[in-house]
Amino acid sequence: MPGQTIDAFHRGSFFLVQPARGGHRAGMDALALAAAVPSGFAGRLADLGAGAGAAGLAVASRCPEADIVLVENSPIMAGHARRSLDLPENTRLGGRVMVLEADVALTGKARTAAGLADNSFDFAIMNPPFNAEIDRATPDDLKRQAHVMADGLFEAWLRTAAAIVRPRGGVAIIARPVSLGPILAALAGRFGKAQIVPVHARSDAPAIRAVLRATRGARGELSLMPPLILHEGSGGGFSERAEAINAGQASLFGD
Amino acid sequence: MPGQTIDAFHRGSFFLVQPARGGHRAGMDALALAAAVPSGFAGRLADLGAGAGAAGLAVASRCPEADIVLVENSPIMAGHARRSLDLPENTRLGGRVMVLEADVALTGKARTAAGLADNSFDFAIMNPPFNAEIDRATPDDLKRQAHVMADGLFEAWLRTAAAIVRPRGGVAIIARPVSLGPILAALAGRFGKAQIVPVHARSDAPAIRAVLRATRGARGELSLMPPLILHEGSGGGFSERAEAINAGQASLFGD
Repeated sequence: MPGQTIDAFHRGSFFLVQPARGGHRAGMDALALAAAVPSGFAGRLADLGAGAGAAGLAVASRCPEADIVLVENSPIMAGHARRSLDLPENTRLGGRVMVLEADVALTGKARTAAGLADNSFDFAIMNPPFNAEIDRATPDDLKRQAHVMADGLFEAWLRTAAAIVRPRGGVAIIARPVSLGPILAALAGRFGKAQIVPVHARSDAPAIRAVLRATRGARGELSLMPPLILHEGSGGGFSERAEAINAGQASLFGD
Repeated sequence: MPGQTIDAFHRGSFFLVQPARGGHRAGMDALALAAAVPSGFAGRLADLGAGAGAAGLAVASRCPEADIVLVENSPIMAGHARRSLDLPENTRLGGRVMVLEADVALTGKARTAAGLADNSFDFAIMNPPFNAEIDRATPDDLKRQAHVMADGLFEAWLRTAAAIVRPRGGVAIIARPVSLGPILAALAGRFGKAQIVPVHARSDAPAIRAVLRATRGARGELSLMPPLILHEGSGGGFSERAEAINAGQASLFGD
């Protein structure tokens, strides 16, 4: 189809049908998020706001006992995800991955009716779609407005995650550091034992992302983990750890 | 006096009269907090919960145009601070440092009457006294109770900081990572453009502290800065950067 591409991930372990251009193309964010899931994970995982399915497929590729539901509200992106699952190259994973067209922000009975029942998942991951968009809203007023909307979305999405994930199940989220306040506020009373891995493009620059993982109903304390540095040396190359995550050969939290 | 010691800091640039034992002895926390103040800082700075005065004296020692008020509620610790200022070794600093015996959690007129007037400082730093204490309260219930009290204290202390620091003035706080949620919540609407430096004992272990700096009334976003690693190599020695901070020769945020 014109306007779409088929791209290899995890060094050819799975493929993704994506829009040819625009902010919705998957990359390091999706792979770093997927790497937050323990390598030995077995069970049912929801990829909330899955887009074309990069993060969910990356989990399916690395965790052979994971069943994945790609939850996506945009019919266009859900269509890309379905075409990804239909690719012959993804036969190995397709049987364990399904697409659910639903709005993550739904609540109560509407959420259940959409296919997101309470306590029906062992893990939820999310890469909220506005992450990359806010910086482009040039005027300051628009940017502030976008942030307020974003803060509300974290509350709504983590509320859904807390509902659909069973007690002691996990949640992982990738976001910009500016969102840590609203995220920690939305986690309170729902998820505990949170761990944050700051993601830096280079070791001497501020973090561009934070990956946070937490456990539903746990009481443990928040930890700040050693950062993930994407690029090392004077060239543009990836660091060894980033390469391993790109290749689907490492988890972000060492498990 | 029995039960107290006189200790050198910043390689002999200033000295501190301290209790001989117990959790109130100053160390790396106070020096890392002081290092959050820009080296070129000039103006009036409040060290809230100053203890024997280590952090405030460290700022006075590194910033020759800083005037410091050590705010301490415990008469015993305020007494140590006064004796520190009276040491002949501290003559160079004494004229720019004073002790104010007051409760940081005071509000409104009581706070003003205690000597903490609104908008009367250019910067406030704080190393809340419970940081080191909570882990020792062995039973889980006590620990949780201590955390709840600690969370309330962050709100009260940052409320005071927001009152006494002038617009565009600064605040810096050192705390355990577990407190980042309550701290970010207490900053909201008061201080912006926050920067966090995680402090790790070793590069492969979770952070033991976080130093956060923010600007009153600023709208900038939260940043996660590269971490401070205290120890490097297989020995117990300090890293170069930690040595420089211990010696009063470096600021934590590169300014």
